[in-house]
Amino acid sequence: MPEAIAYELAKKQKEISVAEFFERNKHILGFGNPTRALITSVKEGVDNALDACEESGILPDIYVELKNQNEEECIVIVEDNGPGIIKQQIPHVFARLLYGSRFHAVRQSRGQQGIGISAVVLYGQLTTGKHAKIISKIQADQPAVLVELAIDTNKNRGEVQHQEIMHWEKPSGTRIEVCLKADYKRGKRFVYEYLQSTSIVNPHARLIFKEADGTEHVFERTADILPKKSEEIKPHPYGVELGTLIKMSKETKARKLASFLKNEFSSMGDRTANAVCDEAHLDRNLNPADMSREQFLELYQAFKRVKIMTPPTECLSPIGETLIRRSLKNETQEISPEFIFTASRPASVYSGNPFQVEVGIVYGGNLPKDKAVKILRFANRIPLLFQQGDCAVTTAIASIDWRRYGLDQPSGTGIPIGPAIFLTHVASTQIPYTSESKEAIADIEEIENEIKLAFREVARKVQMHINKKVRRVKTREKFDLITKILPEIAKKSAHMLNKPVPSLEKVITRIMDVVWIEDVVEYEKVRGKPVQTKLNITAGKEPAESGGWIAKSQIMIVNYKGKPQKFNLYALFPKNAVVGEVKPKPTKVTESYIKWSLESIDPTDKIDLFFELAGLNKGDFDENDLYVQNINPTYVIGADKWEGE
Amino acid sequence: MPEAIAYELAKKQKEISVAEFFERNKHILGFGNPTRALITSVKEGVDNALDACEESGILPDIYVELKNQNEEECIVIVEDNGPGIIKQQIPHVFARLLYGSRFHAVRQSRGQQGIGISAVVLYGQLTTGKHAKIISKIQADQPAVLVELAIDTNKNRGEVQHQEIMHWEKPSGTRIEVCLKADYKRGKRFVYEYLQSTSIVNPHARLIFKEADGTEHVFERTADILPKKSEEIKPHPYGVELGTLIKMSKETKARKLASFLKNEFSSMGDRTANAVCDEAHLDRNLNPADMSREQFLELYQAFKRVKIMTPPTECLSPIGETLIRRSLKNETQEISPEFIFTASRPASVYSGNPFQVEVGIVYGGNLPKDKAVKILRFANRIPLLFQQGDCAVTTAIASIDWRRYGLDQPSGTGIPIGPAIFLTHVASTQIPYTSESKEAIADIEEIENEIKLAFREVARKVQMHINKKVRRVKTREKFDLITKILPEIAKKSAHMLNKPVPSLEKVITRIMDVVWIEDVVEYEKVRGKPVQTKLNITAGKEPAESGGWIAKSQIMIVNYKGKPQKFNLYALFPKNAVVGEVKPKPTKVTESYIKWSLESIDPTDKIDLFFELAGLNKGDFDENDLYVQNINPTYVIGADKWEGE
Repeated sequence: MPEAIAYELAKKQKEISVAEFFERNKHILGFGNPTRALITSVKEGVDNALDACEESGILPDIYVELKNQNEEECIVIVEDNGPGIIKQQIPHVFARLLYGSRFHAVRQSRGQQGIGISAVVLYGQLTTGKHAKIISKIQADQPAVLVELAIDTNKNRGEVQHQEIMHWEKPSGTRIEVCLKADYKRGKRFVYEYLQSTSIVNPHARLIFKEADGTEHVFERTADILPKKSEEIKPHPYGVELGTLIKMSKETKARKLASFLKNEFSSMGDRTANAVCDEAHLDRNLNPADMSREQFLELYQAFKRVKIMTPPTECLSPIGETLIRRSLKNETQEISPEFIFTASRPASVYSGNPFQVEVGIVYGGNLPKDKAVKILRFANRIPLLFQQGDCAVTTAIASIDWRRYGLDQPSGTGIPIGPAIFLTHVASTQIPYTSESKEAIADIEEIENEIKLAFREVARKVQMHINKKVRRVKTREKFDLITKILPEIAKKSAHMLNKPVPSLEKVITRIMDVVWIEDVVEYEKVRGKPVQTKLNITAGKEPAESGGWIAKSQIMIVNYKGKPQKFNLYALFPKNAVVGEVKPKPTKVTESYIKWSLESIDPTDKIDLFFELAGLNKGDFDENDLYVQNINPTYVIGADKWEGE
Repeated sequence: MPEAIAYELAKKQKEISVAEFFERNKHILGFGNPTRALITSVKEGVDNALDACEESGILPDIYVELKNQNEEECIVIVEDNGPGIIKQQIPHVFARLLYGSRFHAVRQSRGQQGIGISAVVLYGQLTTGKHAKIISKIQADQPAVLVELAIDTNKNRGEVQHQEIMHWEKPSGTRIEVCLKADYKRGKRFVYEYLQSTSIVNPHARLIFKEADGTEHVFERTADILPKKSEEIKPHPYGVELGTLIKMSKETKARKLASFLKNEFSSMGDRTANAVCDEAHLDRNLNPADMSREQFLELYQAFKRVKIMTPPTECLSPIGETLIRRSLKNETQEISPEFIFTASRPASVYSGNPFQVEVGIVYGGNLPKDKAVKILRFANRIPLLFQQGDCAVTTAIASIDWRRYGLDQPSGTGIPIGPAIFLTHVASTQIPYTSESKEAIADIEEIENEIKLAFREVARKVQMHINKKVRRVKTREKFDLITKILPEIAKKSAHMLNKPVPSLEKVITRIMDVVWIEDVVEYEKVRGKPVQTKLNITAGKEPAESGGWIAKSQIMIVNYKGKPQKFNLYALFPKNAVVGEVKPKPTKVTESYIKWSLESIDPTDKIDLFFELAGLNKGDFDENDLYVQNINPTYVIGADKWEGE
């Protein structure tokens, strides 16, 4: 009897080391071609450096250098001032795929896979046969260590080729040097763009980029204090998979269902935990270890039926509207856009992972009017440079009917056409990248929806702004007309009749019949200690020590109506600003607005309001947001109806 | 002295099991949402089944069944008549990621990662907590074995939960049953589409799809013999990375450089091997084990400077133009397209991996004229259903200026608009998928270029066809006009002058002044044993036994020129067809054309040609491809200038 084919085939069955797998599929990690490989290598190095510094509460100072050896090979150097890495860990961290500190932690971080930097070392070895050089120093009073690493791809383990103690001036830090096959000529431009975009969303980081020819680019920090550190949290019951639930029950120390729920999940207080048990008809004192699959299924379904608080958001570290606005302003100076609007969504959840969406729109200026809008994508403060086509951000934007917001969009779907830049930042404890190269966000429904909502919100602001502007311009024309022509007529006729020229205020007023509000914001530099604000951010591009800015806002109100007017005026300001002097005395000052109850203003009378804001950068606040109350807003030019309270 | 932060961080450093990694990143494997998860599960099961059958020379009979348990859960069953899997291997094959038989082999196969089917089991366990059920039978005279499997994700190992011997009627085969979280309602349509597309490019497979409500769809095989089996080859020197080269030198048994080259690489004969050594200035007797990195670098660079034969293509198993054409015809019957053209490129190489591109265009019929063309993508006979946006196929198509070929394309780039379907099949020993979910091909330059070339080629055919048609129609109108009006005039004037009606042939001829060629192809069913052909394929949708088709081609030539005409006529036919009767006796018959040397044809004379082809399916050949020689082709309607020989 012939041996079954199955035995033949069985002989070929073999384990594949994860290193072998990615060596073969290097494009999946972002090393598909020599240009991409260069960018990916820098990216992984810088992402790691930023994570390490932030986790240790150190303001990142990162140095990137490229040396091209020949048309084929290029040396990539990334150096940071982070905490360093202890000797024993170096081979694991840099030469072992799927090894890291952030995978099992539920909190926002750039690296989450434990693949990135080892992949760079792997690619370098694959394409040049050379070893990676790592320098690490963990304490000021200790020497640094230099380690040369290779990867045994069959075992997916790092092999120390050489190791020595050396002197390194900086107190602590890590330096990685890898020689790899790369297209320096084509690649360096993208590296520059990547670092520039990185500085947009990491204003607390100082980046230096040294090109092969010695040219140095410095991206200064615009914030000298670290962003709020993202705290680690427990998984949220919503969207946790049944299988995961069962697995957790095997690993928990809790001996009672109720305490299992409270100990292992976030947003689970006594009341919720009990509510879930009751809803699932399960005894709170059940031992999770003894529960059947069916019982877990009950529990799993009960999660959905019980109202559970959304997960705590301290695990997230969004950029914040002001910072996004500031960065965009910085980046678009030469474009001198007409306006910049931003929107930030509350945190939400997809399969148990908290996430938050922030967006911004830059409009007008000398942006091309006949091209598709430019899309800037960021995830956990990492710029996404490739695979825009299949990114959830793109899908979300394309699915909105932008024609309703005044942008051109053939067929009502797809990327709109117009003079605008769209920025999106998704922050999450677990960004669902479409592949290990971390270049696009997968089409998760919850995330797409949040992106849509954010863009709709900011699009509405854009629309409102345009309408307001149009109305003001119209009235202004009417006003100019009246104030020019009437006096002429008056003079002429008075002269003919040989009578004194009559006062025209009343007439003008009768024709205008509006309350005219006009405002201007000016900035004044202040020396000395910068103002501390909730945003924990001080001065602009120049060194932080030198002080900050004060925004001075002047508001002029003229009553061009026939009768005296008495109403309330509200002036909004950014949450993170600190209010200084206010004239006249306001009725109320909250964290987001100033309220004046204005005593009756007689016809043709004019009154002036003034307030100053500290803790802002120049341009953070360059147009007042004014609202009126107790007066018919249709008679008011320059302010909208107050909807608050 | 405080402990360095580095020690703190080191405590968190941890290995990540590949199973944990993919459990967390299930979307990367194509399980991003319940709809996608259903399709992916069926896909992985069917791909495996097809591979197993083909490797064992068995015509695949594959049964797919879906049972939806409730709105949340669905059972997926895939059963094949393959060789089965030996008991000991079952836990590894189905419950261990990165384990397989095809990863280390250089030949075309669907599965190449050793992830797919285990991922399905993993996802099932994750979302339902249930175990996968595997039945395997490896020999007719042995009982089958049933194994229930779980995955220990921390170890990435399969755990047998239950095992028993059972009776199974089929001689051999494998059956997998997995319960998973899936959206049956939305998903089943895609499953149908996937199976339909699969049958397009796998005409030798018989697929049965049973829906949850019992409805059965059968996709019959249109070819009853397996495609040429793809042979395993050695890696090709072109594009093999330096690091890989060094690694190979460590693993080779060869003790001499020259033999190392000959034994470990394809396309390396004595002459080439020696040429490479000389080019690299390396002694042929060097022991690879003793060579330095620099010497390998020399060798590596010498590879590029020495002319080396392209790799053998027996490792590839393309579909073939006729099969593509046939499948497209099958699938587009209700569209009744105007024509179908195909093109097939010679095999090429990217970083050492041979690959080959085949494309087809379906044009006209009742396809929408104002929509983007429909793109069908296939890789190693697997339909690619998602992530079209970032697939090399899409990029390549979008980069062609289709306006030159008569398709609408705003701005000259992007997916063209028009009544057409574009099919692309990429066959390779290693498809560079953008992610493990195998849904898009990465932007590898070599592959994109081949796709472009293939589409340009077929686009030219489309253009030629249209021009030819236009010309024929014009002449036809002229012809009709003349043959209607002239006789009328003649009759009338003859009547008036009371003279006999003159013969008009000469006049008509003088005005027409062309050689008119018209042809028609008809099919006739033949009973009994089908004709065997190179393509090894017989009858259409009906069972193969019942016989085949004979294509009968009639060609009529009329000389509407003033002088007698003497020229050669060539009729092309598909390479795989077998020529039957030919009248009159041809001068020459090759494997691709019939040649007639036509004796002088007098003005207004008409001659008929005839030939029949066997071994084709109805519609494989439905329009003659005619060429003329030794006559000014501009005077000929219905044939082009012969460029051959």
